[in-house]
Amino acid sequence: MKKCVKCSQKAVVHLPHHRLALCKEHYVEWFENRVEKTIRSFRMFSEEDRVLVAVSGGKDSLGVWHALWKLGYIADGLHINLGIGDYSELSERKTRAFAERIGRELHVISLREHIADIPTLKDLQDRPACSVCGTLKRYYMNHTAKKLGYSVVITGHNLDDECAVLMGNVLSWNLDYMARQYPVLEEGKGFVRKVKPLCLITEKESALYAFLSNIDFVEDECPYALGASSIDYKLVMASIEEKSPGTKLRFYSEFIRKVRPMLVAKQDVKLNACRVCGEPTTGDVCSVCRLKMKLQAQKVS
Amino acid sequence: MKKCVKCSQKAVVHLPHHRLALCKEHYVEWFENRVEKTIRSFRMFSEEDRVLVAVSGGKDSLGVWHALWKLGYIADGLHINLGIGDYSELSERKTRAFAERIGRELHVISLREHIADIPTLKDLQDRPACSVCGTLKRYYMNHTAKKLGYSVVITGHNLDDECAVLMGNVLSWNLDYMARQYPVLEEGKGFVRKVKPLCLITEKESALYAFLSNIDFVEDECPYALGASSIDYKLVMASIEEKSPGTKLRFYSEFIRKVRPMLVAKQDVKLNACRVCGEPTTGDVCSVCRLKMKLQAQKVS
Repeated sequence: MKKCVKCSQKAVVHLPHHRLALCKEHYVEWFENRVEKTIRSFRMFSEEDRVLVAVSGGKDSLGVWHALWKLGYIADGLHINLGIGDYSELSERKTRAFAERIGRELHVISLREHIADIPTLKDLQDRPACSVCGTLKRYYMNHTAKKLGYSVVITGHNLDDECAVLMGNVLSWNLDYMARQYPVLEEGKGFVRKVKPLCLITEKESALYAFLSNIDFVEDECPYALGASSIDYKLVMASIEEKSPGTKLRFYSEFIRKVRPMLVAKQDVKLNACRVCGEPTTGDVCSVCRLKMKLQAQKVS
Repeated sequence: MKKCVKCSQKAVVHLPHHRLALCKEHYVEWFENRVEKTIRSFRMFSEEDRVLVAVSGGKDSLGVWHALWKLGYIADGLHINLGIGDYSELSERKTRAFAERIGRELHVISLREHIADIPTLKDLQDRPACSVCGTLKRYYMNHTAKKLGYSVVITGHNLDDECAVLMGNVLSWNLDYMARQYPVLEEGKGFVRKVKPLCLITEKESALYAFLSNIDFVEDECPYALGASSIDYKLVMASIEEKSPGTKLRFYSEFIRKVRPMLVAKQDVKLNACRVCGEPTTGDVCSVCRLKMKLQAQKVS
C-alpha cells in the first residue's frame, strides 16, 4: 500500500508522472496549489481583474471554479444552456446548485433565446455539431463577459484537451493554429482575455479533484460529441501515457516553452468588427450573425 | 468491385489516401514510379554515384532493391548478419537468394566477426537491444560503404518508420533530432550519404509490392523488437490513419516541407575522428569502440 508522501497516511492517489502518492487531504491541497501556480506563472489575471468562469456543469469547469473559491479568488460563473434536451437541463440544474453551494453569482444564458438550440443549428450546417457549438460558446462567452463588465474569462480546458488539440494541429502541421495555442489568449481587438488554469492538469486528476471535493457534476459526455476527432486523439495520448507516464505533460509544456515562441511571430490575423453585431471577425459579418441570417432565410422559405 | 483507374481491370488494391484503385500490374508500376520520383525530387543520387543498398532480408529493403533493379539502377547490396539465432540465419539466406535472383553483388558482414552478436551485446548494456543494434548497423553500413568505395547507402525506411520516429521526437519536442530527420543525410565529416527512397511509401504499400513482386522476404519481426516504443507509435499512427486516410503522409511530408526548414539552422554538431578507428564521433572514442573495450574488459575479468 502506498503512503502519502506528505503525512504517511494511506494514499488515495498515485501520480506516476509526478512521482507522487497522496492522501485525500494532500491531493486536494496539491491540486489547488497547482492551479494557483499555473495562474501565477502564466500571469493569468490579477487582483484588479473581474473574473468570469465559463461553467458547463462538467468536472473541469466546476472543479476550477471550486478551486478558485477555495483559493480565495472572487469569480462569478457563466453557464450557456445549449438546448440539447435532458443533457442541457441537467447541466444547468447542477451548475445552479453548485453556484448556490459556493455562494457565487451565476449568469445563465440560453442559446435558444439568443439564436437557436444546438440540435436546430446542427441540422442547418454541414459542419460537425462540436464545431458550431464551439463557435457559439466562444462568441457568447466573449460577448456576455464584455456586456457584464468582466475582463477575464476562465475555461476548464485540461491538459488532455490541450494535448488533443495540439496533436490534431501537429498531425497536419497547422502552424497558425499552433502559434495561437497558449493558456492565455490576451485581450484586445474586441476580445476579453481568456485563460486556462487547468492546462497542466490531466483529465483524471481533474475528475479525482471533483470527486474528492464532493462536486455534483454532469458525468455524461455530450450526446453530440461521439465520433469527434478530439476523442480519438485523447485515446491515442492515453495509450502512450500509460506506457510512458509524463508524455502528455512533456508534449504540452515543452511545446509551450520551446516551440511556440518560434511560431508566434508568424501569426498576423487581421480582425474587423462584424458589420451586424460589432463582435470581432476576420470577415465582414461574423459567423454567428451569418448563422442567424441562415436561420432567418430557412424560416422565410 | 473496384476497377483499376488505369485499365479498368479488377483492382487488387485500393489506396484511399491517394484516391487510387489499381490492378496488380499498375500497382507495381505506380510503386516503382513513386520510388523514382522520390529519388529525383530529393536528389538522392546521380549516375556518378556508386550505390549500396542495406538489406536486412525484410520486405522494405528487398523491395527497394528490387524496385531499383527494375528501374535500371545499378545498386549492390550489403547484409549485416546480427547473429540473432535462426532469425539472422534465415535473413542472410533469403537475402543471398534474392541477390542471386536479380544478379547483383551482395556483400555480407557478420557482427560476430567484427565485434560480437546482438544477444551478447544486449547483455552487456542497459540500453534496449534496438538501440545498440541501430548504432552498430549505422556504423558498419558507413564503414563498409567507405571501405568498398560506395558513395551512397540506401536504406528501406518507409513512411511508417519515419512517422514513428517523428512522433517520438515530437512528443518530447526533441528539436535537434527533428532537425536531422530528412530522407537525405548528406555526406561529409566521415559519413557517406544516406538516403531513404521509400520515405513516402507506407508499410502496407511496401508489403504489397514485395508480395506482388514475388519477393521471398523474412516476415517475422526481430525477436528483440517486442516492446520497442516505435511499435507503439506505429499502432497509434495506424489507428489515426484508419479514421483519416492520408494522415501519415501529411504528417511526414508537411513536416519536411514546412517545419524542418525552420529547425535546420539550429543544428551544429561538432564531430571528431574516433581516436581508435577513425570513424566520426561526437566524443573522443566512438560508441562502437567503447563497446569493444567493454567486451574486452569483461573477457579479462
